[in-house]
Amino acid sequence: MYVKNFEKNLLEKIKKRKLSVGIIGLGYVGLPLTILLSKYIYKLYGFDNDKNKIKKLKKNISYLDRIDKRLLKRISKKTVYNHDYSNIKNCDVIIFCVPTPLKNNKPDLSYLKDSIKVIFDNLKKGQVLIIESTSYPRTTREELVDKLKNDFKIGEDIFVGFSPERIDPGNNENSLEKIPKIVSGYSNKCRNIIYQFYKIAFKKVIKASSLEAAEFSKLLENIYRSVNIGFINEMKIVANKFGLDIFDILNLAETKPYGFVRFNPGPGIGGHCIPIDPEFLYWKAKKIGINAEFIKLSAKTNIKIISYIRNLVLKNLNKKKINYSKSKILILGISYKKNIDDLRESSSLKLIKLLNKNGIKSISICDPYIKTNYIKTREFNSKIKNIKLTSSNLSKFDIVILMTDHDIFNYKIIKNNSKFIIDCRGKFKVSDKIIRG
Amino acid sequence: MYVKNFEKNLLEKIKKRKLSVGIIGLGYVGLPLTILLSKYIYKLYGFDNDKNKIKKLKKNISYLDRIDKRLLKRISKKTVYNHDYSNIKNCDVIIFCVPTPLKNNKPDLSYLKDSIKVIFDNLKKGQVLIIESTSYPRTTREELVDKLKNDFKIGEDIFVGFSPERIDPGNNENSLEKIPKIVSGYSNKCRNIIYQFYKIAFKKVIKASSLEAAEFSKLLENIYRSVNIGFINEMKIVANKFGLDIFDILNLAETKPYGFVRFNPGPGIGGHCIPIDPEFLYWKAKKIGINAEFIKLSAKTNIKIISYIRNLVLKNLNKKKINYSKSKILILGISYKKNIDDLRESSSLKLIKLLNKNGIKSISICDPYIKTNYIKTREFNSKIKNIKLTSSNLSKFDIVILMTDHDIFNYKIIKNNSKFIIDCRGKFKVSDKIIRG
Repeated sequence: MYVKNFEKNLLEKIKKRKLSVGIIGLGYVGLPLTILLSKYIYKLYGFDNDKNKIKKLKKNISYLDRIDKRLLKRISKKTVYNHDYSNIKNCDVIIFCVPTPLKNNKPDLSYLKDSIKVIFDNLKKGQVLIIESTSYPRTTREELVDKLKNDFKIGEDIFVGFSPERIDPGNNENSLEKIPKIVSGYSNKCRNIIYQFYKIAFKKVIKASSLEAAEFSKLLENIYRSVNIGFINEMKIVANKFGLDIFDILNLAETKPYGFVRFNPGPGIGGHCIPIDPEFLYWKAKKIGINAEFIKLSAKTNIKIISYIRNLVLKNLNKKKINYSKSKILILGISYKKNIDDLRESSSLKLIKLLNKNGIKSISICDPYIKTNYIKTREFNSKIKNIKLTSSNLSKFDIVILMTDHDIFNYKIIKNNSKFIIDCRGKFKVSDKIIRG
Repeated sequence: MYVKNFEKNLLEKIKKRKLSVGIIGLGYVGLPLTILLSKYIYKLYGFDNDKNKIKKLKKNISYLDRIDKRLLKRISKKTVYNHDYSNIKNCDVIIFCVPTPLKNNKPDLSYLKDSIKVIFDNLKKGQVLIIESTSYPRTTREELVDKLKNDFKIGEDIFVGFSPERIDPGNNENSLEKIPKIVSGYSNKCRNIIYQFYKIAFKKVIKASSLEAAEFSKLLENIYRSVNIGFINEMKIVANKFGLDIFDILNLAETKPYGFVRFNPGPGIGGHCIPIDPEFLYWKAKKIGINAEFIKLSAKTNIKIISYIRNLVLKNLNKKKINYSKSKILILGISYKKNIDDLRESSSLKLIKLLNKNGIKSISICDPYIKTNYIKTREFNSKIKNIKLTSSNLSKFDIVILMTDHDIFNYKIIKNNSKFIIDCRGKFKVSDKIIRG
C-alpha cells in the first residue's frame, strides 16, 4: 500500500513556498500576520465571522488604525477573504488568530471552539493547524489535539502546534518579522514543520519543548507586566501617602545600572492583554489546585487604582466645596494607552462610570484619537462630549484628569489653563494645583 | 559680629580635597567606601564598635572576602581606625554605614540611633552628616535632623543628608565609583555640599528632590527584586504543578525583545537586602495607614519556598520508602548566593532547620566557600558536616539538593553520582532522577 508522506510533502511545499495558508480571525493579530505572510506565500485565505470586515477587506478598506489600505491593495491578488469556511480544504496551513477574551472573569474559549467546530468537516490529511491565540497551558491539547485524534493520526497525517502571537498594537504590527517567534508542536515532526513554516517570514524562530511551555511562556510575559504595574501602582499609593512623588522616586531608582527595571504607575490597565491574560493562568492554576496570589493581587490593585482616582476627585471637590452634582470634570485621553484609539478595557470609561455613581454627571472627555464629537459606549447610558483642547474649554472644568498621555496633547495649554489637575501619568511637576493620581 | 561661612569653607575644602572623613561602621558598606575615598581624601577615620575588627584593620588584615589586604596596606598611612568616637571632632564629613537589620520583623535602627548618640558630644559646627544605611522614608529627618535641630542651625552651621549605599557584595565592592550615587539633603545647601563631596570619588552623582525620595528609592530598588523573585517563585510552583519546567518557560519568555525581564526562581531569598529592606517600607507604610500587600505577599512566598522544598524532600523519601530518620540528605551550597561565603539569611540553613523538625537528622552540606569541615550556627544545635564533592561522597545520599549554584561545583560529577537531585537553580535537565525544587 502506498502511504503518502505528508511530512515530506509539507516540507517540500514550505521549501518552495508553494503553499496556501488560511488565517482564521482577521483582527489585530490575524490581519498583520496575513500581510506579513503575503510577502512570501503563494496563496492566502482570510476567514472571519464578521461579514462587515470581509466586505471591507474585499474593497481594500482597513478597519485597523495602523494597517494602511495600500498594504491591503498590495496583497489583494493573492488573498481570498471569506466569512464561510469551505476554503479551509484548500489550505495547507491553518492558523487560529481568534479572540480569547474573558466572560464573567473566566476564560472564554468560545471563539476558538466554534472555529474548530466550524472548520472540522473541511479538514483533511496533510494539513497543519496552529493556534496563535493566547490561552492557558493545555489549551491546544484539550481543544485541538483531543478533538482531532479520533479522525487523524496527529504527527503523521495532520500536524498541530501552538505559536503565541506577540503583537504590541501601536508599535510593531508592521514589523512582526522582527519579533522572535516561538513554536511548539504536538510532536517533534509537528514542531519541525511549524518551525520551517514560520522561518519563511520570521527572522528568528525558537523551538519550545512542549505545547504547554509555549502556552505558559506567553502568559508569563504578560503576567510579569501586570504584576509590575500592580506593584508600582501600590508604591504610588504609598508614596502619595508619604507626600512623595512616585515619578521622582522612579527617576532615582532607575539610575541603578543593574537589577532594576522601571515601570510607570498609571490609572489602571487596559487593552487586550494585561487585564485578561493573567486571568487565564489564574483560572487554570486554580483548577489544578493552586492559588496564584500574585496574579490576583495585581488584578485587584490595578482595578483599585480607578477608585483611588475617583476618591481623589471627590476629596478635592470637597476641599473646594463644590457640589458633586454641579461639578465639571474633564478626562484627558480615553484610549487604554497613548497614541492609539483603542478603547478595550479603558480605565477612563471605568472612571466615568464610577464618577457617575457618585452623582457626578457633567463629565467631558478630550481625546483627539476619537474622531466623533460624542462617545457612547455600553459602559454608560448618556453620551459623553469629546471637546477640543483649547484654553477656554479647559478653564471651564473644576478638575482635569490626565488619564492617557497622548503625545499630541499640548501639555503647556493644559497646565496653564486648568484650574486643578490630577496627573496620572507624571507629565507635570506636582504643585498646589497639580497632584499625582 | 563675624559669622563664619561654613558652607563656603566646606566647599573650599572639598575643592582642594583637603578634608577629613569619618566612616561609622566598617562592614561590607563602610570598608569598601573607606578604600574608595582614600584615593582622593586627605585623612580618613574609620569607626567601629567591634574591637576585633579595629584590631585586624590596624594590622591590615581583611575580614571581608573581596577586600584584599594590599588595599588595606595601601590606605594605612592616611587612615586611623578607632573603636571610640573622640576623633569624630576631627572629621569634616561623617558617614553612617551602620547595619539596619530587622528585629522581630520590625526595623531595628538601634545601631544608627546608638552611633548618633555616642558621637553627639563630639559634633561641632561646620560638619556634614550623611546616612548611607538603608532605611524607611523619614529616617534621616526623625533620627538625625530632629535630634540636631536644638543645637544646630541645619543647613547653616551643620549639614545633613541621605545617600543610599548600592553595594552588591561579590560584584562591585571594588568598583563602587561606577555606581551612580544618589544624594539628598535637608536643604539645597546641604544637598549641594554632599553632591560636591561625592563628586570627588563617584563618576555620576544624582540629586534627589528630598531626603525621603532618596530613602524611598533605595527601598524601591530592592522591593522590585523581592516582588519579582516572589512572583517567579509562585510561577515555579504553578509550572511544577503543570509538570512543566519553569526554566524552560523562562528561556522562551526572555526571547521577547521588549517588556520582559527574566528573574530566576530559587530556594528563597537571603543576604542583607532582599529579605530585609522591603520590611522597612512595609512597617513604615503600615504606620501611616497603608497595607503594602505586594511586599507582604513577596515575603510570604519567598519564605514558603523553603517549606515547598522540604515537602519535595518528604514526598520523594516517601516514594522511595525511606524512613525520615534513616534518610541521608546532602545540601549543595549554603551561602545565600553563589560564589560567596555569606550566610546571612541563608535559605539552606533554614531548610536544614525545617528538615530537622521533620525528623531528618542526617544532613550534610557541601560548600567550598566554607573553609571548615563542620558548620555550627545559632540556627541549630548539632554540627553539620561540610563534605568534599567526590563521586563516592555523593553516592551516599538519598537526596542531593542543589541550593546555591556556585560556579566551582563540578556539575558533571554531581549529575553522574547522585541518586536523586532536587535542583533549585535550573542547572540540570529534568529527568527521572532530577526534579525542579
